[in-house]
Amino acid sequence: MPYPDAAATHLTPAEDAVPADLLALDATDPLARTRDLFSLPDSVLYLDGNSLGALPAHVPDRVAQVVTREWGDQLIRSWTGDAAWMTLPDRVAARLAPLLGARPEQVAVSDSTSVNLFKLLSAALHLQDTASGGTRRVILTDADNFPTDLYVAQGLNALLRDRYELRRVPALDLAGAFGPDVAVLLATEVDYRTGERLDLPGLTRDAHAHGVLTVWDLAHSAGAFPLDLRAADVDFALGCGYKFLNGGPGAPSFVYVSERHLEGVPAFLSGWMGHAEPFEMAREYRPAAGARRFVVGTPGVLNLAALDAALEVFGDVDLHALRTKSLGLTDTFIRLMAPVAARHGLTLVTPLEHARRGSQVSYRHARAGELMTHLIRAGVIGDYRTPDILRFGFTPLYLSYADTYRAAQRTGAVLDAVLGAAQVQA
Amino acid sequence: MPYPDAAATHLTPAEDAVPADLLALDATDPLARTRDLFSLPDSVLYLDGNSLGALPAHVPDRVAQVVTREWGDQLIRSWTGDAAWMTLPDRVAARLAPLLGARPEQVAVSDSTSVNLFKLLSAALHLQDTASGGTRRVILTDADNFPTDLYVAQGLNALLRDRYELRRVPALDLAGAFGPDVAVLLATEVDYRTGERLDLPGLTRDAHAHGVLTVWDLAHSAGAFPLDLRAADVDFALGCGYKFLNGGPGAPSFVYVSERHLEGVPAFLSGWMGHAEPFEMAREYRPAAGARRFVVGTPGVLNLAALDAALEVFGDVDLHALRTKSLGLTDTFIRLMAPVAARHGLTLVTPLEHARRGSQVSYRHARAGELMTHLIRAGVIGDYRTPDILRFGFTPLYLSYADTYRAAQRTGAVLDAVLGAAQVQA
Repeated sequence: MPYPDAAATHLTPAEDAVPADLLALDATDPLARTRDLFSLPDSVLYLDGNSLGALPAHVPDRVAQVVTREWGDQLIRSWTGDAAWMTLPDRVAARLAPLLGARPEQVAVSDSTSVNLFKLLSAALHLQDTASGGTRRVILTDADNFPTDLYVAQGLNALLRDRYELRRVPALDLAGAFGPDVAVLLATEVDYRTGERLDLPGLTRDAHAHGVLTVWDLAHSAGAFPLDLRAADVDFALGCGYKFLNGGPGAPSFVYVSERHLEGVPAFLSGWMGHAEPFEMAREYRPAAGARRFVVGTPGVLNLAALDAALEVFGDVDLHALRTKSLGLTDTFIRLMAPVAARHGLTLVTPLEHARRGSQVSYRHARAGELMTHLIRAGVIGDYRTPDILRFGFTPLYLSYADTYRAAQRTGAVLDAVLGAAQVQA
Repeated sequence: MPYPDAAATHLTPAEDAVPADLLALDATDPLARTRDLFSLPDSVLYLDGNSLGALPAHVPDRVAQVVTREWGDQLIRSWTGDAAWMTLPDRVAARLAPLLGARPEQVAVSDSTSVNLFKLLSAALHLQDTASGGTRRVILTDADNFPTDLYVAQGLNALLRDRYELRRVPALDLAGAFGPDVAVLLATEVDYRTGERLDLPGLTRDAHAHGVLTVWDLAHSAGAFPLDLRAADVDFALGCGYKFLNGGPGAPSFVYVSERHLEGVPAFLSGWMGHAEPFEMAREYRPAAGARRFVVGTPGVLNLAALDAALEVFGDVDLHALRTKSLGLTDTFIRLMAPVAARHGLTLVTPLEHARRGSQVSYRHARAGELMTHLIRAGVIGDYRTPDILRFGFTPLYLSYADTYRAAQRTGAVLDAVLGAAQVQA
């Protein structure tokens, strides 16, 4: 093994010989400065920001302040005093809104992605039942949707005594699967395994043409490229705070609600923090205005504050420049990996077409799990997804073209060592 | 005003003259040493640990380690590496179990109290439907239950198209309200306003005698006194991580499930973290063994780790000694406050009988909100609960008899100043 527990700081001559064209791209990269906003160890080539975003450098201070000053010193006074924890979910929502193409009141930040999906799917089904008189009984979803999306739909349907049918079709067949029996399309914009990006505006338009409401999971979208949910007329969306938004492990998730539904959308997970007047302690639930009703119980302030601070990084980032760089990095990786893939029988499963690509590159290989273990040990941190996917995520905020070059070089070397340099494509 | 923004470090002569009998109680207090485990400012008399527990002194280091080392340096590897975030919910549950009188596999730690209530109430109703053939359609609850408990029941029932009736009766009438139409008793052991403690074992026994399942909210119980949920044969329970457990703002909540239901209890909020094999990424939901199925989505690791560390404080605490001290402190406060209450027309609403008292003392007064604002400004931190409750919580882990004396002295002085020293009971 050439890289037993190697660190990326110990570069081989090949890894160090970054081609001039890539160095030139780094030199003119408008996002180059954001790398310094992260506390990312030099010892790794981190291609897993789509699983857990790196730590923004100022987050530890913010969290320490929340713990020692706001909790420790100010104690209960922080709910309504200077720290104003009561409105922290709203402030985080306001920071996030521009990344989604949303108004602040359309966004709520709380709970996990799974719990938020339950809120939105139950609300969408209810609205559809009311509108359709109960004739639409199908939840249409991508057969390869992230498991938790399927589980939440299964759990909700079991609670509703199997009122609905969960119809799972391949992602590319979704557009042809709308019909008068379909209540809701539940789809994830970017497939967590292949990195394939669906046509969110197109599918939303098609869905609406058939009277279908849309619930979009943006786990691998938010913070990875610009979103314009209002322009796309998306009904409901949700996503993850800890991937491309860098909010930290288990950061709260967000929900988005179309202005069309904002007034009447039911919050069946109705808790006191989503009440119009929490401290009124009224016996009857009365939803807060806008998406705030989807904040249910007392928010986990430490994680919420970490996400709040992390989102500062996006303050003046041009999301179109971010997208351009993301495509540049993934194009570069695909190109550099092409001979490695050919040599070792890796099958690229991420679309080459830009419009159909998220911010990751994935390959299939029968020994993917074992290979990723070796790669991680060698300092190239991607991840393995069952049954046979090697996944490499690209976060333009902290990855350079040089990093991308080195990651491809080292991946090739590790695969050569593990699989044999002379191996021919299977 | 005698105490404009006064600090408890500036004691008046009267406040400093702690009677010898109270000093003697402090001198022999077996819990005296735990005060030093907290980072509680000397400038306040903190009687609000039942709203937000004080900061255990070692928590900031633990949180800093999670942020900088586990997240920042180890990144995604912390899910399965040394930090083992995947099993952190189980480790916190195991720490908590002895405080509840539970086995570790009966406890799950995740989400907010409101969300956990939804999980348990939906599960209990489903089990009851199956057992009763759908004849039991009443959710019986305390009319003065904490609002979120009522809201969650309302929201769940709305989702289930008003299948159930939410029947709210005064707490003291619950015992007589069981009948063949009642599915579930949803009750909070200690009333958040009055501090009255219900007879949990007795009500559970009565409920079972009538075929009713029990869901107990232990928000003001867990960590405040010993619990023996197994002995009481409680079906389901849940509670708060940030009150007497000191887990920090928005700490995750816990659920408890009777061994009788552990095998078959449905988790309708079914997410990937509650799956039997999360990384299998299977399309079909298969619940994890035991209460772990109630961990839904990715847990908020910062808040969860803070709770984990906070629970270390309970490591060798004798909960019976804790209860003894709690009753001693509240007895003392009630006694010392008696002349103040008489002078100013405060009505004690907390029961004198020990068995019926939680770990707080509450009074009614028409100007309660205004009075609490003055008290907080003077360094006596309790809280106000609508419409007319002054609430003082007592956490034996960090409060002494001397603190209790000083708090009563200062409360009397502040009320004298605000209401007039000569005022006679209304």
